[in-house]
Amino acid sequence: MNKQLILSKRPVGLPDADTWTLQETAIPQATEEGQIVVHQHYISLDPAMRGWMNDVRSYIPPVQIGEVMRAGSVGQVIESKNDKFKVGDFVSGWGGVQQYSLSDGQGWYQVMPDLAPLPTYIGTLGMPGLTAYFGILEVGKIKEGETVLVSGAAGAVGSVVGQIAKIKGCRVVGIAGGSEKCKYLTNELGFDAAIDYKNAEFSVYDAIKDTCPNGVDVYFDNVGGDILNTALTRINRHARIVICGAISQYNNTDSVQGPSNYLSLLVNRATMQGMVILDYAKDYQKGAMQMGMWMAQGKLKSKEDIYEGIENFHETFVRLFSGEKLGKLVLKVI
Amino acid sequence: MNKQLILSKRPVGLPDADTWTLQETAIPQATEEGQIVVHQHYISLDPAMRGWMNDVRSYIPPVQIGEVMRAGSVGQVIESKNDKFKVGDFVSGWGGVQQYSLSDGQGWYQVMPDLAPLPTYIGTLGMPGLTAYFGILEVGKIKEGETVLVSGAAGAVGSVVGQIAKIKGCRVVGIAGGSEKCKYLTNELGFDAAIDYKNAEFSVYDAIKDTCPNGVDVYFDNVGGDILNTALTRINRHARIVICGAISQYNNTDSVQGPSNYLSLLVNRATMQGMVILDYAKDYQKGAMQMGMWMAQGKLKSKEDIYEGIENFHETFVRLFSGEKLGKLVLKVI
Repeated sequence: MNKQLILSKRPVGLPDADTWTLQETAIPQATEEGQIVVHQHYISLDPAMRGWMNDVRSYIPPVQIGEVMRAGSVGQVIESKNDKFKVGDFVSGWGGVQQYSLSDGQGWYQVMPDLAPLPTYIGTLGMPGLTAYFGILEVGKIKEGETVLVSGAAGAVGSVVGQIAKIKGCRVVGIAGGSEKCKYLTNELGFDAAIDYKNAEFSVYDAIKDTCPNGVDVYFDNVGGDILNTALTRINRHARIVICGAISQYNNTDSVQGPSNYLSLLVNRATMQGMVILDYAKDYQKGAMQMGMWMAQGKLKSKEDIYEGIENFHETFVRLFSGEKLGKLVLKVI
Repeated sequence: MNKQLILSKRPVGLPDADTWTLQETAIPQATEEGQIVVHQHYISLDPAMRGWMNDVRSYIPPVQIGEVMRAGSVGQVIESKNDKFKVGDFVSGWGGVQQYSLSDGQGWYQVMPDLAPLPTYIGTLGMPGLTAYFGILEVGKIKEGETVLVSGAAGAVGSVVGQIAKIKGCRVVGIAGGSEKCKYLTNELGFDAAIDYKNAEFSVYDAIKDTCPNGVDVYFDNVGGDILNTALTRINRHARIVICGAISQYNNTDSVQGPSNYLSLLVNRATMQGMVILDYAKDYQKGAMQMGMWMAQGKLKSKEDIYEGIENFHETFVRLFSGEKLGKLVLKVI
């Protein structure tokens, strides 16, 4: 049987367990030309999923009530009527929160479990890593010697952003919640400094001032809210702010907090630019190959925090927002 | 004697009349090599002046208490120890709110009263016009056929922004306060539509939706606040938002209103970029010449709203914020 998680209502605020319903259906079969069936091993859990649950116009249509919850995934082809895939291939795509997915193969691509563990392909070598790669290079336009500040720095995107900025010769400061994550950034990933925003002993403002003595040239924002607003006060002339996400705001039940310091953009002739990874599809392969090489050279580290069982989706999902995880959050569903 | 207006205190909120003190001093004399004395004819009144009165880090140092209030001006050289200027030359520069200014000539440049009336050189052919020119072309990067929305559209900057966008083949919609200004935009300046934000019969949201049926490609913002936040909901993919000013926020006594819809930048992969005209100094002449040609061809209209008497500075200045003026606000001080 195929266990799958169906969106059963639109959440208000942080989704509760009733937001989804677990159901069992028959394992799907490839009946039409071009179809493939993937036996899914790992499901990607990402903050963006929260946005897909709202019934608003966005960069992709919302998940409809009654549909399988959208998610990236990685698994193995068990049936194929598609010339591009053969049974036994390992593939990654938008398989959704379920154990078996049926599709026309669109958006799926082959991955190599010999080169990197499967979960890496939905992490550092998948959408989060590619988001970091194109975000910091194409939107952030980092240059050697610049100071890069990144929030959500211990997360799947932020940790890669910071490591790429180090590879490119920048001074890198990460903002994360808790001393464990901060130690991970400086001791394991080579960040120049880390700011624990949950530490009440100092303000984030003072901490940025201390750790970025030459100001901030590029701020990569995954969190929004107060941290974005504070970062705006420390940017340099011609700074670039990459708006990748706003995890602090996704479960708001009232309106999103706007950055009241946005006029710092004017004073500093700075740019705030939003990004969506889907725009870089034609260059995914190039980005993934580059990151694979950096991983092979030991310059780029990937960490996944893996939980097990599709039944545990809800309690795993909320870790995205409580921060109780380290690295890329993954659910093993096989 | 030289009447001059001295900043006597830092205002909180809208400046009151006691913010400045009128004093009379001797007419200055050029005693050192390089100095010039300018008999000032017209003083430029601009929203940015409000920002210069706050004791905060910004793109230029604040005006100090006891200093002559900073302002752009245009007048005639009456004494010169500077090779670049001779007595009788008409010049524009940062002469401040006074009748005679002494300087080393830095930042002053000659203007031609035969080609355009003197007040034009602190309006459409001066900083406001150049701000519009470089803002909409270099930051807004308008392309033929795009929809351009501009706030503060009947003002010194906004009116030029809209006209340049029309010259470049865009659909142009202006936002202004009051039916007189809106009629001016559509009847005299050739805007495709105008939105009266003071008209309670419709919302600005609905009005933008109606007048920009294909969405907004470039939004040029002079006002900030609710109008910026509403405009963010109607932008197209890859839209550019030019942050030129935020007149609705300059007299706030509590914090600036941040745009709570800023995540529209992410959804639409859009860019919000601040600008300061000082960055384009090397290209001022090119911009002014181009605009002079457009004026000569009748494609670009310039309107100044001229008040008289340095004694009336305060009551004229507050018109910037009440909106009781049409076109570029100028004070004749000769």
